[in-house]
Parts: sequence; structure tokens; C-alpha cells
Amino acid sequence: MSQSVTACVIVIGNEILSGRTQDINLNHIATTLGGWGIQVHHARVIPDDEDIIVNTINEVRGSYDYVFTTGGIGPTHDDITAVCIAKAFGVPIVQHPDIEERIRQRPAPDDVMASRLLMARVPEGAALIDNPSGGPQGFAMENVHVMAGIPRVMQAMLSTLEGELTTGPVIRSHTVRAYTGESSIADALALIQQNHPDADIGSYPFLREDRYGTHIVIRSSDVDLLRRIADAVMEAVQDIGETPEDLGLDADASA
Amino acid sequence: MSQSVTACVIVIGNEILSGRTQDINLNHIATTLGGWGIQVHHARVIPDDEDIIVNTINEVRGSYDYVFTTGGIGPTHDDITAVCIAKAFGVPIVQHPDIEERIRQRPAPDDVMASRLLMARVPEGAALIDNPSGGPQGFAMENVHVMAGIPRVMQAMLSTLEGELTTGPVIRSHTVRAYTGESSIADALALIQQNHPDADIGSYPFLREDRYGTHIVIRSSDVDLLRRIADAVMEAVQDIGETPEDLGLDADASA
Repeated sequence: MSQSVTACVIVIGNEILSGRTQDINLNHIATTLGGWGIQVHHARVIPDDEDIIVNTINEVRGSYDYVFTTGGIGPTHDDITAVCIAKAFGVPIVQHPDIEERIRQRPAPDDVMASRLLMARVPEGAALIDNPSGGPQGFAMENVHVMAGIPRVMQAMLSTLEGELTTGPVIRSHTVRAYTGESSIADALALIQQNHPDADIGSYPFLREDRYGTHIVIRSSDVDLLRRIADAVMEAVQDIGETPEDLGLDADASA
Repeated sequence: MSQSVTACVIVIGNEILSGRTQDINLNHIATTLGGWGIQVHHARVIPDDEDIIVNTINEVRGSYDYVFTTGGIGPTHDDITAVCIAKAFGVPIVQHPDIEERIRQRPAPDDVMASRLLMARVPEGAALIDNPSGGPQGFAMENVHVMAGIPRVMQAMLSTLEGELTTGPVIRSHTVRAYTGESSIADALALIQQNHPDADIGSYPFLREDRYGTHIVIRSSDVDLLRRIADAVMEAVQDIGETPEDLGLDADASA
């Protein structure tokens, strides 16, 4: 199997930690990157605190191929991400002419413009991430990609990175549904996992219309391997007298 | 202000990192603990990997008053949380008689029962967290609380901890809505924040029925202080010719 490419997601924002806002950015980033062949291996949610942001970025940026942050790049006092990334990399913060140009396209009184121009600040040497939603761009500093917190804007920014990043094999999934308690097939699944260390077999119980069941999700970049393991899982479910359903490749069975 | 009590949430599960499952546990835990007077200051999402789980638990458990984990306590091979917590604390894993008793109440063939009894394993010395949803209990090892990943079950477990934990002041919020771009009030908000370092002022832009606006959320345990800051924010919005809406205490304006 060729080398996997990994990512870490850092969600920045007091509003996520307080519970005011339900984060949906991690899920979108994980799904999108996964489809490109980049695996999210780690995620953190941290507050709008300079020391914590700087230390977190420096702790993770060497451990993953890519880091993606969301949040804290607006024009108010609690938007400190750009300054923190500059500190993490030990470079000055500068006003980027391309972001400035975009911001100045929409006229505003001087004091308002001054606040809006705070969004033009990037660490020296950063590359821009375009923002098809029309607002100021995000930026990348080495392997750290800094995006907006508003999901619609973040999604627009992320979409522009398609084809721009180093990618590895795409991990596919194959799902089998069984209306049985997990314990009834636990031994068989453990044995199948043991025999196939290159794939990742997960079991996710659910309750649907008063029936207990479990989704067995097999993950690997090797579609033939997935088929063989799925067959073994189907057989294991039949062995205990139940009728498995083969939901096939990349099924959305997240119930 | 009396000492705040802090928590760290560790979401354990490949299915969250792959994007298969949208996590909703962090939000519920943050909201629930916040209501009790415990502030979630940090959260991580990590894979079902023994070394990573053990190291993460040992990294965070000394830095927060409480750690809450979700996921990985079922009966299958990928449910390794209990074993990892025991390793993190350097104690053996033992079968807890109370969990065993609950599991044995529902008869099963020997091999199935053997798998189900894996859910009775806890680190030696752990206390149980009851599970009103009827399944096996969770457990707490010192300040680390280990709960199920299925939201309904996790919520049931967490609810039993009400009144059992050390709590600090409850952080209240006061929200002002303004139909204005953030940049128009950024300077005023920064000044208000500077004048009130004991409160946390956040600005969260939104787009609603084609109108841009922002929610200014002030957070503090001091309700009188919140009122004074909210008044200052209302005035700042009026100063730029807009009409603010006072959404009041603990408003749910998470749009």
C-alpha cells in the first residue's frame, strides 16, 4: 500500500467549547479530504487564546502532513488566528495586497475599512487560499491551512484546494448491516480483523424501528480486499442464523 | 470570582475522524457541564489506537479538573477504551461484579455472553457511572469519566453525574443581535472587551434572509456585569445608526 497522507484539524473557537455552536466543520473537512486521499488522524477544539493556539499549532504541525484550522479570521478583537500563526512560525504579520484589494472593492468609512483590513493580515510568506464566497481569502503557511469558521465560507475555501495538495490512496469503505447484537458476532469479527491487519473493521450498533443492529464497516484502499472481508463478515452473520445486508462500497449508513 | 472548574473532552472513534459519523457528544457534554458550572476548555478527537489513547489520557488528565471520554466501550475488538484507561493509570483491568450482574440479567449463549462480559471490564479501583438506558455502566477512574459513544446512552450516563461533581460558577451569556457587519462595530467591541477583561465578548456573524448581522455574545458568571456590558454594546450599535436587539440572558441564537 502506498504511503498515506495525514491531516490534523484544529477548530478554534470559544463558541464550540461552550456548546453555543455545534461544530460541523470537522465532519466536512474529514469527508472532503478523505475523498481526495488525505486521512484526518487527529482533531482538537481549542479556545480563542493566543498561547494555546500558538503552542497547539507548533505541537501538531510537524506530526501530520497537513494541518487545517477553522475560525478566528474575522475583523473583531476575538479573531486572533492570523497573528497566532505568525507567532507560531516566528515571522512578522503583514498586510497581503491581494486580500487588501478584495476588501477595498467594497467601500466603507475609514474606521470600518481599518477594521476590515485586519482580515488582510497574514504571516509573511503565506500563500492565499481563495474564497469563492466572495469575502477575504484564507491562507496557508507551509503545511498549515487557515480557513474561516463559518461553514459555508470554510467549505468554499476548502473546495479551492482540490488538486493542490499531496494525496495518498483514497480509503474506501464497505458496509454490512446485521440485525443482531454486537456481542453475537464479536468473536468472529475479532478473528477476521486479526486475519486482515491491513484493513480497519469497525462495528457501530444502532437502534432502528425498535430493532437492534450493527453496521460493520470495513475500511481500506484495496477494493478487492474489502470484497473478500465483506464476504467473510456476511458469512459470519449467516453462521449465527441472521440475514446480513450487503450495503456495498462507500454506503452512507450513518444512522 | 470563585475558581472555575474545567474539563477536557476526548472523543474516541475512527468513525468521527473518517467523517462517517457527525459527533454531537461534545456539544451535549459542553452544554450540560456548563449548566452545572464546569467549563469545557479543550476537546480532542482521536482514533481507536491504544498508544494514542493511553498517551492522550495521560497528557490531559493532570491539566483539567475532569476528563470525559466517549466511545469504545462496547463488546467488539475495536472497543479498547477500558483497557487503555487501565494502562494509562498503570492498574490491572478487572471484571466489575455490578456490571457483570447487569449483563447476566439478559441470558445469552456462552460465547455471546463471553463477548458481552468484555463490557464488564474496568480498571481496578474504578467507580461506576450508572446507565439509565439499561445497558452496561460506564466508569470513572479518578477524574477520568468514561462513557459510551452512542449519544442516547452517553446522555443517560452523563445525567447521573448531576450533583456528583465539583462545580464552579455557572457562566451565563447575554446576547445582543445587530444587523450590521462586524467591521462596523469592531473597534467599539475591542474597547469594551479591554475595559472588561473579566468577561468574554465574542462576535458571531450570520446571514439571515439575505441580511448580514452579528450576534455579540458576552459571557461571565456575573449577571450584573453582563447587563452593564450588554448596555455598552447596545449603545455602540446605536452609535453607528443601527437598532440592536437585546436577546437577553442565555439566549439560544446559534443560527
